[in-house]
Amino acid sequence: MFMKRIRLVVAYDGTNYCGWQVQPNGITIEEVLNQALSDLLGEDIKVTGASRTDSGVHSLGNVAVFDTGTRMPADKISYALNQRLPEDIVVQDSRQVPDDWHPRRCESRKTYEYRILNRRFPDPTRRRDTYFLYYGIDVEAMQKAADLLVGTHDFKSFCSANSQAEDTVRTIYACSVRKTEDIITIRVTGSGFLYNMVRIIAGTLLQAGTGKIRPEDIKEILDAKDRSAAGPTAPAHGLTMIGIQYEE
Amino acid sequence: MFMKRIRLVVAYDGTNYCGWQVQPNGITIEEVLNQALSDLLGEDIKVTGASRTDSGVHSLGNVAVFDTGTRMPADKISYALNQRLPEDIVVQDSRQVPDDWHPRRCESRKTYEYRILNRRFPDPTRRRDTYFLYYGIDVEAMQKAADLLVGTHDFKSFCSANSQAEDTVRTIYACSVRKTEDIITIRVTGSGFLYNMVRIIAGTLLQAGTGKIRPEDIKEILDAKDRSAAGPTAPAHGLTMIGIQYEE
Repeated sequence: MFMKRIRLVVAYDGTNYCGWQVQPNGITIEEVLNQALSDLLGEDIKVTGASRTDSGVHSLGNVAVFDTGTRMPADKISYALNQRLPEDIVVQDSRQVPDDWHPRRCESRKTYEYRILNRRFPDPTRRRDTYFLYYGIDVEAMQKAADLLVGTHDFKSFCSANSQAEDTVRTIYACSVRKTEDIITIRVTGSGFLYNMVRIIAGTLLQAGTGKIRPEDIKEILDAKDRSAAGPTAPAHGLTMIGIQYEE
Repeated sequence: MFMKRIRLVVAYDGTNYCGWQVQPNGITIEEVLNQALSDLLGEDIKVTGASRTDSGVHSLGNVAVFDTGTRMPADKISYALNQRLPEDIVVQDSRQVPDDWHPRRCESRKTYEYRILNRRFPDPTRRRDTYFLYYGIDVEAMQKAADLLVGTHDFKSFCSANSQAEDTVRTIYACSVRKTEDIITIRVTGSGFLYNMVRIIAGTLLQAGTGKIRPEDIKEILDAKDRSAAGPTAPAHGLTMIGIQYEE
């Protein structure tokens, strides 16, 4: 049987899942994909994901690969798979890639958005994908702080204390903060992110937005290389992985 | 006991409700509000709503009134009530109004939005408040058709055949169709709307957008005064009541 490697782009509403990665305590995106693919193709399929998003985090474009002997054309797999997936997981694209292509070993740029709903009362139609805050937030101060994160830095202060990561140097290519109507969106693109890094960035930029820190304090926070120097980890449901751009 | 009349502005995600109005077959927004208000104020409260939205329809600003003998300041009721409401119903404002003020008997302008997600595959994070269509849609043709709805017309063709309404003349002040990224938004403001009218407008404008009818056919559809002349009723979950402006 000739095997081929298929790359999927996967979108999901993470509300009802315990994150991406298979784990004993609850249902995960990876597990649902494995099951639907195995049923569809009649093989035991195990996907490998690019970003192991946390419980409650959403995605518009996570990437996963798997190997299969199927004769089904690669681009038809997305349509057939979506018939078997629940409505909160939708494959956006399926295509063949070289047999040695790996979603975490290729150079890439990942983009995430963290969204804050900033108004007097919550909007129930946006409760699943925005973090609600009623108090005044200075978006300009957040942008000034965000500017200081751009570049190649040791982001140890912005990494969960539970992480085992040895190399905590990462590159942030862009970090913008903009407000449209009542939603503040932090959009960050980087070479890769440490465990909880985007949510800690969001929690720290919000401290700049409420005057708890000055924007220029970001430098000291980076220099400290200590998780306790940065702000709190913002809640998972405000975070959406937007997509991954690979160097071809 | 001195009674006073309180006006609420109510937002909700309609996904899990059988619409606004109390009915035997399932839980409704009105019923949940009545229960929460009665519990909060220790009186038997029954609200009167401005717009009796259908099952699955959302709202950012429906309006309701009730009478109460409470001493609680009117503007504090919203905060106390939200503590008792589920997270998919959030009161946005509470204030006292004259004792004879009625949300359906005052001159008003109501605004609704119907949202269509137009891309290759569904976005699971927008599945609750957009209607997904993958095929190409001509937004300009939709706008040309929408322009012909503006004004005072007999909208009998755009009224559910199940409606008992005798007077089917209504005024549409504005009807715009715009596309932002992959979402087409039909925004319509009128003096009032017949049963299913906005969803039938959406279904008919979509027929113009796909070339099934020509934009100018709207005139004949209005003249027909017959439900079967207009397009299908678009699904409820794409519809959001945006708000109501009252003449003071």
